[in-house]
Amino acid sequence: MKKQELHQIANGIYEVVIGIPEVHTPTAHRSVQMRKEALMALPDARPGRAVEILRALSFRISQRGVLLRLPMDPSENIYGFGLQFFGINSAGKRRLIKVNSDPVADTGESHAPVPFYISSSGYALFVDTYRTATFQMGTVAKKGASRSMRIENEAHTEFSESALYALKKSAQEREILIEIPRCNGVRCIAIEGSILECVQRYNLFSGGGVCPPEWGLYPWYRLYGGCDQKEALRMAKEFRADGMPIKVIGIEPGWHSHSYSCTYRWSDLFPAPQEMIDQMQEMGYALNLWEHAFVYPAAEFYEELLPYAGDYEVWNGLVPDFAGKEAREIFKAYHQKHFIDRGISGLKLDECDNSDYNPSDWSFPECSQFPSGMDGEQMHQALGILYQDTIRQAYAERGKETYSEVRSSGALASPQPFVLYSDLYDHRKFITALVNSGFSGLLWCPEVRDCVNGDDLLRRLETVIFSHQALINAWRIPMPPWKQTDIDLSLAKIQMEDAPYYTAACRKLLEVRISLIPYLKKAFEEYQNSGKPPIRALVMDYPEDPNVADIGDEYLFGDEMIVCPLTYEEGTRKEVYLPKGRFYGFFDKRFYEGGRSLTVDVPYDEIPVFVKESSGI
Amino acid sequence: MKKQELHQIANGIYEVVIGIPEVHTPTAHRSVQMRKEALMALPDARPGRAVEILRALSFRISQRGVLLRLPMDPSENIYGFGLQFFGINSAGKRRLIKVNSDPVADTGESHAPVPFYISSSGYALFVDTYRTATFQMGTVAKKGASRSMRIENEAHTEFSESALYALKKSAQEREILIEIPRCNGVRCIAIEGSILECVQRYNLFSGGGVCPPEWGLYPWYRLYGGCDQKEALRMAKEFRADGMPIKVIGIEPGWHSHSYSCTYRWSDLFPAPQEMIDQMQEMGYALNLWEHAFVYPAAEFYEELLPYAGDYEVWNGLVPDFAGKEAREIFKAYHQKHFIDRGISGLKLDECDNSDYNPSDWSFPECSQFPSGMDGEQMHQALGILYQDTIRQAYAERGKETYSEVRSSGALASPQPFVLYSDLYDHRKFITALVNSGFSGLLWCPEVRDCVNGDDLLRRLETVIFSHQALINAWRIPMPPWKQTDIDLSLAKIQMEDAPYYTAACRKLLEVRISLIPYLKKAFEEYQNSGKPPIRALVMDYPEDPNVADIGDEYLFGDEMIVCPLTYEEGTRKEVYLPKGRFYGFFDKRFYEGGRSLTVDVPYDEIPVFVKESSGI
Repeated sequence: MKKQELHQIANGIYEVVIGIPEVHTPTAHRSVQMRKEALMALPDARPGRAVEILRALSFRISQRGVLLRLPMDPSENIYGFGLQFFGINSAGKRRLIKVNSDPVADTGESHAPVPFYISSSGYALFVDTYRTATFQMGTVAKKGASRSMRIENEAHTEFSESALYALKKSAQEREILIEIPRCNGVRCIAIEGSILECVQRYNLFSGGGVCPPEWGLYPWYRLYGGCDQKEALRMAKEFRADGMPIKVIGIEPGWHSHSYSCTYRWSDLFPAPQEMIDQMQEMGYALNLWEHAFVYPAAEFYEELLPYAGDYEVWNGLVPDFAGKEAREIFKAYHQKHFIDRGISGLKLDECDNSDYNPSDWSFPECSQFPSGMDGEQMHQALGILYQDTIRQAYAERGKETYSEVRSSGALASPQPFVLYSDLYDHRKFITALVNSGFSGLLWCPEVRDCVNGDDLLRRLETVIFSHQALINAWRIPMPPWKQTDIDLSLAKIQMEDAPYYTAACRKLLEVRISLIPYLKKAFEEYQNSGKPPIRALVMDYPEDPNVADIGDEYLFGDEMIVCPLTYEEGTRKEVYLPKGRFYGFFDKRFYEGGRSLTVDVPYDEIPVFVKESSGI
Repeated sequence: MKKQELHQIANGIYEVVIGIPEVHTPTAHRSVQMRKEALMALPDARPGRAVEILRALSFRISQRGVLLRLPMDPSENIYGFGLQFFGINSAGKRRLIKVNSDPVADTGESHAPVPFYISSSGYALFVDTYRTATFQMGTVAKKGASRSMRIENEAHTEFSESALYALKKSAQEREILIEIPRCNGVRCIAIEGSILECVQRYNLFSGGGVCPPEWGLYPWYRLYGGCDQKEALRMAKEFRADGMPIKVIGIEPGWHSHSYSCTYRWSDLFPAPQEMIDQMQEMGYALNLWEHAFVYPAAEFYEELLPYAGDYEVWNGLVPDFAGKEAREIFKAYHQKHFIDRGISGLKLDECDNSDYNPSDWSFPECSQFPSGMDGEQMHQALGILYQDTIRQAYAERGKETYSEVRSSGALASPQPFVLYSDLYDHRKFITALVNSGFSGLLWCPEVRDCVNGDDLLRRLETVIFSHQALINAWRIPMPPWKQTDIDLSLAKIQMEDAPYYTAACRKLLEVRISLIPYLKKAFEEYQNSGKPPIRALVMDYPEDPNVADIGDEYLFGDEMIVCPLTYEEGTRKEVYLPKGRFYGFFDKRFYEGGRSLTVDVPYDEIPVFVKESSGI
């Protein structure tokens, strides 16, 4: 087994092949090609840290799979690894790249784990695999690294778990270990540049960032799960009557004649779907339908799909092998005929992740076999992205664009017109995920669902309007949350006392979103052309400022705004950090001098957003 | 690759070898031999379900490792898999056999995961591996199993996550999938019999149950982490003065001159350890010392151990390769000379598990290599049991017995004189673990640590006195919990108001424990001779009663008692289930007719314990 000589594959991007890579990898399954010219348009990258790292990389191939070893400096900060919920800096952490719908702890598992990281030392690394790889980012030290330590009889003064762990000293030597199981080789792609440049190059390598159709940037609303055709139209009219500027309406599983698994056929609750679609369009709405990929036996294309599905069922349904042409074609043709040609603007692709922590223990086993040759482990990491790509192509073939939702994603995702969401619901973690999304070519919606009260609703809506998708997901409540936040009272159709106040406050926030659309559209165009994400951690734009290295609750929104969302639990006062420069408050219009931490007071119906003085906004 | 013809290895125990098994497995590393004669003394086992299952077993060997497939009836209940915290019946669940100190969800991970299960259909299966095997116990269905399903347009009436999941129907076909990664073969051992017979045979196959020295069954107390020699002796005297019948005193990490990692050398806090040991013994105490296996550079045997350690450090310390003779000998010789020969009665072997969920992210990587040829993945599953065996042998070679503590265990553990414990602390889960321990040859202490108040202390102490080890672990509090349960007030040396009441109540409970020692000793002797565990789930003794199949909060304690612990949160009233028979209350002396559920009122200083009328106790 050999390590081939590294070679350059684009401006600032180098590759090295270790052993014999697998057939099924993210690059092998890409349908959007690398943006070579856009990469040339970025500043010229001299061989630097990326080349150095690929040269220093050592490896071992055994029955365990491929083990990679790379040097790491104790001062390095590490970003990326996909939609992480627990923090932005992975230095000193172990990251397991395994798709999971319930990432209960800071293990690296995620709806959208990505085998890609960026080091503050001037390079990024993409490991081209669908395997559940483990990245140990400076958590280990080789035997003997501490051999000269001689400290004894230091006094312990506090006796708690945290105090005990604080006593554990770290070795001076650090290294990165990457283990890719069940394979005999892997392709490693290293990228030169600053954190932002690395991200841009990764996104252009992936095919460039997506630029959604304008309607997708307007406010979205997913209707109550129990609503039928009549109720859906009634709600659409109510939004207009209340002046709520909703643009996209989403319908949950009840539209299927059977769901969990799906028939992809309208249920009795929607007796005249085309009529509904047309009426919605007349009112200016786009319509989005929920589905997942597990095909119920009564579905029209079940028998046709049978030979092109995995060897295990999920919830009685087939698992389409989207790694093969046949399953993709069957799925595309059906969706084009029944939904895309009939005016459905997009889909919500649910449960294409997997669950190890959910007691209902669903999805196919890791040992599954798919006709394409993929196994279940690979398919878990690949399903979200291949499913997205199938739907994206179905629209593209009809000359249409979509902006849709998905619950799982992964490597090389930036060209996909899909926004991630989660059943988890911690507002703080949702904000962290938003900050992290930009490191790995992902879009994320910290969607508004249940709220403890109207002020919680406002705080969550504020985050959502400064995100990739302004979505309210009211699947559990028949009344809009601005009229009633309590689930039981909503089911009983009882408005809350201050519904008029919250309706007005939500309307105002949704109007802010609408006022931002041209600005946001420009940021997405830049994403498409240069790979620069519309939402970015501060460390991407201010790499020289040591204070921002770990900030996971503030972010750049476009080029001119710094957004610092508050959770309801934080109340109305927050300490924020502003990097060097002069800013003014988006809501309070006051001037702020940056380069320091400051405490801001923010009523529940406003969010701290700081606009660069130079921007002219 | 072949599946060899099955052959009988003992009365009721059959083996089949698939492919080429690994060198390092639980049976290959056993030092206690199978109890063939004791197995012959059990009722004769005709070839039945176990033989049927081994014949029906199909397999696939690939780069993924070994995949086993077995039939499963939808009505089967499944027990075992080691120290599980979340329930006793694994039917319909996936179990990951991976050692973990923080099992945050019901994944199968545990301080002591065991690749062994018992089916209510009349067999048990032991898979002889240290790999992180996955057992899917009827969670999957083959493609097409649901092909004839045609239900559509059923009304959904409730919209919540739980309601959605309830809509997911299960297939009629079930199977067991067992995936053992990174190997080319495995030995499978199937056992005939009822649940209890299977457990007995597994324990005798493991070498028989341990019978601890009598002193080990008396009450234990682990001292405050900050205590020095003077304070340890003062506490020992205080117990005597207060009439608290403590027998074993444990000293926490502070006795090492450096810990995390360890020197195994007395610190300045204990200037005359032999004096202390002798004085303790004069007062009737046995002394237990905390340690873990990670060897700090200043330890006397560091250089000697260096060639026999894994290739990565943990907390600056060496990881001894207990799978090889050399590391065991070095460890044994040092411990014999410094501790065993000097009167130390046992050790507390901490942190020999591993952590994927703990933010401090410790232990060696899975890809570690050990001189014996084991890798890190295997060593994680093996370390606890090999460490126990090393210490057990160190005592045995000196003609001494120990009863000690350990934080990780695994396969074939029943002959080891070690009781498991955990840093987790949910009382309900601790009870579930106690019920489960008996299925897999494990001993477990639901230790008393922090308590929200005196009544919580009593409830926890009640569970502990009806467990394998009556331990109070006061490592965070300088005063005994019966004088102060609050940590801060304990540190400030302020007694709680009702200290005299709780001191008396705790004394009474500890005296109950002492009164049970002859009875418990007899149960342990039976464990040793026939493999019947002293603590058992009701389903072991009452397999015909369908009501007990899932009961995880009651257990047999010896042959004559059913114990139903309450948590403080449950208050003073509990619904318990008694199987058929006549019982009387251990505390209230009332008669109870079994074969039904009943509600009992139990003051905080008593625990519902039901004694069989026939027992004569």
